Parts: sequence; C-alpha cells; structure tokens
Amino acid sequence: MQNPLYITNSLSRQKEQFIPLNAPLVGLYVCGPTVYGEAHLGHARPYITFDILNRYLQHLGYKVRYVRNITDVGHLVDDADEGEDKIAKKARLEQLEPMEVVELYTTSFHDSMRALNILPPSIEPRASGHIIEQIKMIEEIIQNGFAYESNGSVYFDVIKYSKTHDYGKLSGRIIEDLIAGAGNEKRVLEGQDEKQNPADFALWKKASPEHIMRWPSPWSEGFPGWHIECSAMSKKYLGETFDIHGGGMDLLFPHHESEIAQSKGSCGKAPVRYWMHNNMITINGQKMGKSLGNFINLKQLFEGDHQLLVQAYSPMAIRFFILQAHYRSTLDFSNEGLQAAEKGFNRLISAIHLLPTLKSSATSSYDVNELKEKCYEAINDDMNTAIVISHLFDAARLINSVNGGTEKLTQEDIVSLDETMKQFVFNILGLMKEEKDNSADMNGIMKLILSLRDEAKQKKDFATSDKIRDELTKLNFIIKDEKDAATWAKS
Amino acid sequence: MQNPLYITNSLSRQKEQFIPLNAPLVGLYVCGPTVYGEAHLGHARPYITFDILNRYLQHLGYKVRYVRNITDVGHLVDDADEGEDKIAKKARLEQLEPMEVVELYTTSFHDSMRALNILPPSIEPRASGHIIEQIKMIEEIIQNGFAYESNGSVYFDVIKYSKTHDYGKLSGRIIEDLIAGAGNEKRVLEGQDEKQNPADFALWKKASPEHIMRWPSPWSEGFPGWHIECSAMSKKYLGETFDIHGGGMDLLFPHHESEIAQSKGSCGKAPVRYWMHNNMITINGQKMGKSLGNFINLKQLFEGDHQLLVQAYSPMAIRFFILQAHYRSTLDFSNEGLQAAEKGFNRLISAIHLLPTLKSSATSSYDVNELKEKCYEAINDDMNTAIVISHLFDAARLINSVNGGTEKLTQEDIVSLDETMKQFVFNILGLMKEEKDNSADMNGIMKLILSLRDEAKQKKDFATSDKIRDELTKLNFIIKDEKDAATWAKS
Repeated sequence: MQNPLYITNSLSRQKEQFIPLNAPLVGLYVCGPTVYGEAHLGHARPYITFDILNRYLQHLGYKVRYVRNITDVGHLVDDADEGEDKIAKKARLEQLEPMEVVELYTTSFHDSMRALNILPPSIEPRASGHIIEQIKMIEEIIQNGFAYESNGSVYFDVIKYSKTHDYGKLSGRIIEDLIAGAGNEKRVLEGQDEKQNPADFALWKKASPEHIMRWPSPWSEGFPGWHIECSAMSKKYLGETFDIHGGGMDLLFPHHESEIAQSKGSCGKAPVRYWMHNNMITINGQKMGKSLGNFINLKQLFEGDHQLLVQAYSPMAIRFFILQAHYRSTLDFSNEGLQAAEKGFNRLISAIHLLPTLKSSATSSYDVNELKEKCYEAINDDMNTAIVISHLFDAARLINSVNGGTEKLTQEDIVSLDETMKQFVFNILGLMKEEKDNSADMNGIMKLILSLRDEAKQKKDFATSDKIRDELTKLNFIIKDEKDAATWAKS
Repeated sequence: MQNPLYITNSLSRQKEQFIPLNAPLVGLYVCGPTVYGEAHLGHARPYITFDILNRYLQHLGYKVRYVRNITDVGHLVDDADEGEDKIAKKARLEQLEPMEVVELYTTSFHDSMRALNILPPSIEPRASGHIIEQIKMIEEIIQNGFAYESNGSVYFDVIKYSKTHDYGKLSGRIIEDLIAGAGNEKRVLEGQDEKQNPADFALWKKASPEHIMRWPSPWSEGFPGWHIECSAMSKKYLGETFDIHGGGMDLLFPHHESEIAQSKGSCGKAPVRYWMHNNMITINGQKMGKSLGNFINLKQLFEGDHQLLVQAYSPMAIRFFILQAHYRSTLDFSNEGLQAAEKGFNRLISAIHLLPTLKSSATSSYDVNELKEKCYEAINDDMNTAIVISHLFDAARLINSVNGGTEKLTQEDIVSLDETMKQFVFNILGLMKEEKDNSADMNGIMKLILSLRDEAKQKKDFATSDKIRDELTKLNFIIKDEKDAATWAKS
C-alpha cells in the first residue's frame, strides 16, 4: 500500500494531497525561459524540479499534459512595465532580427535541457504565436471592468480588482502596501503616468515607432504584456482551471499573482489548483547576477569555462547536485558541492553495475522491501528527492556489503532491489549513465598491446603473439603488419 | 581567382550567376516539414541540400538569414483543399491535442536533423504562430480582387489572376489545362462547390464544428490554407522580395506556384529571385509511399529497423550518400548504395587522419592547388557535390600515395591540402567524424591485457608485467589486484 502524493501548495502554504481534477489526466504548466541569453544554473533548477514531477506523475500512471512556454516577446528589461523588450534589446545589440535571437537561444536552451536529461514538455507554446488568444483575454478583462485603455496601452486595474478579489494572496503581499508604495519612485519615467495606480500592470503595450515586434490590436499596434501570455496559453492548452502551475519563487510576484488576477478577471475562475515553487540557487552564498560576476551559464558548467569553476561538471553531476536538496530549500552552488555530487552519482551508478553480479543467498539479512517503501514515502512527501537519494545511498552500501559478503540477499530480493534502483535512479530521478569518448584510451592501449605482440615475436614467444592476434580477431580488430610497425583497425 | 557561384533557377530553367539583392545579406527560405509523423528519407534530401547552400554561402562570406518553417496547421490530407487537417487527423488517432502531435514530431524532426549535422535555420516560424500575418495577406489579396469569400472560406481566383499574370510559369503548367481538368472529378465532394473554378485554391477554410484548430477571422472561425503560410512568413522575415526559395520538386505545384500568385496578388511583387528544387529519392527504383511498404523513416535507417534494410546506417553515411548525387538528379536508395557511401566516407576520414603523419619532400609531384580550384569549380557549378566528392577521392588517393612513397608533397602543400580537405569535408559538405561507443571493445581489450600481465607474472617476466602496469598508469588506468583476478578502472 502506497501513501498518496502530497505537495506543498504555495497558495495555502501547506502540504496537500494531490488529487487531479480529471484523473487520469493531469494538466501541468511551468513558466519557460525568456530566450535572450544562454540558459544558466538558475534555469536548471525549475526545469529539473518539474521534470521530476512530470516523470513521477507518469510513473504513477497519470497521463500528463505538460505545457512549458517560450517567452519570445513582452518581457521588458524593467519589471515596472517600462524599458526595452529583453529580446528586442539583444537583437539590437547583436544586429539580428528579434526572431533570430529567439531561435538561437531556444535551440541552445533545448541543447542544455537535453544534456540534463529533462524530458521535453508535451507542448511548448510561444508567446508570439498566441497574440490572438492574448488579445481575446484582454478584451474579456476590459469587458468585466478590470482593465482600462490608456494611450493605446491596456492596464490591469489592481485597485478595482482587489475590491472583490484577493490580490496578493499567493505572494503574501498586502494590497495597501502595493498601492501606496510600489513603483512610486518610477512614476516620473515616461509612460508610467499612463497607469492609474503604480500597482497596475500592463496587458498590452503600444509599440514605440522603433519597436520591431508589433501586432495590430483594438487599441494600438503593439505587443502583449509579459503576464498575459501564460494565462492565455495555459487556458488554451489546459483549460480555465487546471491542476498544477510551477515555477521559481522569484515568479510569485508579480508574475503568478498577475496570472491569477487575469484569469479571475476574464472568466471568473481561479486558474490553478496547486501552485508549486522551487527555491533559488545561490553561488557561494551570494545571489546570482550578471553584475556580480558570478553568473555561470550551463554550457560554461559543462565545459568548466568560468573563473569560479575549478573543473568541468557533467550534466548528470549537476542534476544530481540539484536533486540532493529539497526543491523548496535554497541551494548553494560550490565546487565542493558539485564534486561531492559527482562522486555520489558515480557511487550509485557503480552499485547498479555491481547488482547483477551479486551472489544470491538462501535468506536475506536486509529488508529490501522496506527500502523501496521508504523511497516512495520520501518522493510522496512533497517530492523529497534529497531523502530519496539518502535511501539510494543506503541501497548502494547494501550492494557493496553483499558483494563483500557482510550482508546477504536472496535472488528474489536482488531482482527486486535491481528494479527499485533502476526505477528511482533512471526513471523517476531521470539520471542516466554518461557515455564517455574513450578513443584516446583505445589508441593508447592498442599501441601497448601491439608493442607487447612485437616483443613476444622478437623473443620467439609465439604462443603469446598468436594469442594476442587471435583475441583481437575475436573482437573484430584487424591487425596489419606494415614495414615499420603493426597497425590496427576495427572491421 | 574564383569563378562565381551559379545555381539553376527553376523559374528560368537555367543556371544563373547568384547575385544577392543586398549583399552581404542573403535571404533564404526553405519549406519545412508538416509535423504529423517521423521525418523520413524524403525529408533528409532537401534539408541536406539547402544546408550545403547555407554553409557554402556563409563560407563565401555572406550573412545568411535562413528561414525554414514548421507546418503545424492547414496542410490537408487531400491536396484539393478537402479532407482533414493532417495534424488534426493524427491527433484524433492518437487521442492527443493537435499541439501535442506538433511538439512530439517537431522534437523528433530536430533530433534527426541534428544527427545528420544539418545546421538549424536562423528562424523556424510556425504557421499557427502567424495567423494574424496570414489574415492580413488574405485581406490584401481580396482587396486587389484576386480572391473571393464563399461560405466563410476564402479562395484564390486563379482565372482572374491568370488574365494579368503568368500562373503556371514556375511549374510549367498550362493554365487552360488547369482550369479544364484539375480536380473536376472531385467537384462532387462536399465543399468543393464553394470554388468558382476547381483550379482555385483555399486561402482560408471555415472550420467544421468538430475542428479543434481554429482562429477568428473576418470570414469565419477557421484556419489558413496551406500555401499562404509560406508567403506570409517569408515576407515577414525576409521581405517582399528575397533571394532564394528552396524545396523539393514535389512542391513546385501547387505549393510554390501558389506562393508566387499570393505574393503578386497581395503586394504586386514577385517574392523570389532564385527558385531552387531538389529532385526526389526513389527506393529500389520505386516511388516512396506508405501504401507501398517502402516508407523508411530516418530513425529506422539509423537503427537498421526496417525490412528493406540489411543493416543500420549512420547519419553520416546517409548524408554522404545524398551528397554523392547532384541535388537535381533523382537518387535511388539501395542497401548497396548506402554501403558504398559508408565505405567512401570512411575512406575520406581515414585520409584526413593520415594527412598530418605524411613525410614532406623538397618538391611536390602533384598540383595541390589545382585540386582545390577544381573543388571550388564544382561547388560553384550549381552545387555539384557529386563532383566535389570525386575530387576529394582524388585527394584521398594522393594522400595514400604520398604515404606509400609513390607521390611527393612539400610541407607547404601538405598544409594546404589539409586545409582544403577539412574546409570541404567538414565545413562545406558538413560531414563530421562519428563518435562510436567502444566500451565493449574496451572491456575486451582490457581483459586481454590483464591476462597478458598475469601470464607474464606467472612466467616471472617482470619486465613485461611492469611495463604493462606502467603504461596503463600513464594512461590514467587504475589496476587493482583482487583475490580472483585483477580489475581495472579509469581514474
């Protein structure tokens, strides 16, 4: 008997049993990247976190529709709805068409996700591909009186909305503070006075003459605000109310708070039943930031190409490192931590390799079934991968002990342990064996072998030289005796 | 002095010198896949062909904006504008949301393209993401009198258009034949009588009640016709007139002919200066088709998983096979052809490996510069990769002859030949060395070497056993002497 899955719902700040709206279907939405630069360590965490959720829900037999968007328009440099579009800015700096920037970094993002063995989402919609749906939702919000047009732009009326709705509930913000304080110092900025209140947020922005990314709308040639895309696309592909919405804690406010307001403001329904948020990654105790010089992107990590890195880290070491912390805890990046993760990961893989070679006994000295139960208990307890991994380490120790003869397992228990290990390590935690290119090793060893054969021949030890030739032939190697030396090739 | 690049323009049916509209910029558009199934051999050819063009234009110093679309809506099962949408049909059969089908096969398509070392395009726009642009272009065509609404759908008026324009010029169709003949037998089909003439083609289709993929438009809730997406997206990202449009010959009519009509019918300008078309792939002399049982997808080829395949073929063998024919020739697939390609490819790679080990002479017996010139001549002659490869084979023979002592090259010529080979093989033809997983070989060889060490020890030949240990240590192998036998690991 398995206990059910509990997850922490950011909305109630409590662990709640997960009960899907329309089992066996599960709708899952996770905020994807704004594709104006290389994916970094801060991206790896949410996508690995919700990859585990996606994998585990599938493991439990649910049919998951996992939607993770690509933000390719509307995310402004300044969060107070001002400043250039992040992608348009990058395009200007790199002398590219904005969609070239989008394509470049989307491809790169996919490369990094694949390296980290993150399963692709079922649908990966782009904001620029859903302008019609966004305009329609804005029209509905205006119709319901929760938004107003101002100089060709449209803003969500937070004050009006908060009179009848609980704006700030998800993020724990107090509406009075927001109205009084937020962004007041920015009101002097151009365009900011279009807002009736600084707490209001943009649904549609009129494009300035030099702005390339623009579409016609009832209000102006312009582009959608950042928050509306997720509301429009999650509704299109998952319905007005769906099961789980995930993202990093930095998105709680204003992004996710605004999503709730937009959905309630358009169709009157709360969009999401379970909100899940992963905590942040710090670097040697500091917040990660471009200005702090501690901003490490994933390709730099994979290649060890950054001043803070003492070596390259494989994607699986990084994945393992992230999984060794509970997703709701902060996680501090350090070389020591990653090196330890690398060793831990290798220890698990070695144990799995050892498993099929174990000699079985008539009785078991260890309760393999209890170990399995503990793994499920941990993953069901708000996806506590840190505890799952500690149990897997216990399993690895057990395997080594059986190998060393200090513990005993029956054949049945060996098979069961093998299943549990593979299920959790490969399927649920999504770790995989890493292939290494060992052609350099191969060349070195073949050179050694051929020199041993040469020596044997010179000593007239033909038994040895023949053995070498025969064994290599069995392995499909072709050895040719050239003028100077022997050469080898694989047939 | 290099001769300029000539390419065959399908419009003039002649080789024409390529002169870009706005050098150093080049605009290139290639019709991408309709993502409702696995990419097959027929997809590999156009994307490899235009990958060579993209690579070579960049090699020549042009800045290429390469747009290759994803058709995710509007491509109907029946080319006469009837029948279900290909993606909607697949979604119905697989019980998925259409965009889940799109995502699944787009990801799979990207995987295959990456395996074939095809560079990603600069922009990969999706039809469903450009509904607004397509509606706008349809409105312009209606305004110019070249399209009409009928029952919520919009059709291009081929008869009216052909009175003032040359419909059929690209594909060599005679307009009278089209008007009299095409599709007449289909007029009885539902909806077909919406057309004033069977030669007309759909720009917008009203969605039937059960049709999921639908957007609002001035005419109906519906979806765009297949042809309009390429016109709208090429215009958006490359302008009203751009340099090169590529695709398979099967797209000449009606797809590309319709693109020309749509552009001229909306803005009055011819969209494309050079139309390029690759020829088809046949399988053992037969057309490839799902009903003929000879439909091989790329993953089956990579894995040898099809009744017509006697083995698996590596992506590079397939790429090489396709490049050994001129892109405008038909290419017949056969196991023999692919096996020959595999050997040919390996011969080139082996020669490149041999190059740096060649001993130089005081004089050269071969004109290395002429060989390079010949390679450029061939690629400049309408991208004749078949001839390029024959010259590269000459180069491989030369390298082997120098190695065997029957030809001579100066150090300078060896360096020059090395540059030419690498430039053409890797950069222009886009071939790459393939990494092979040789861990099985490694295990076999290590077992052999450890047994040789064991024997040497038993014979008290410590010189040999020490040599083995020392050499392995140099290669960073760790050898442990266990109770039963020695084991090895890589440090």
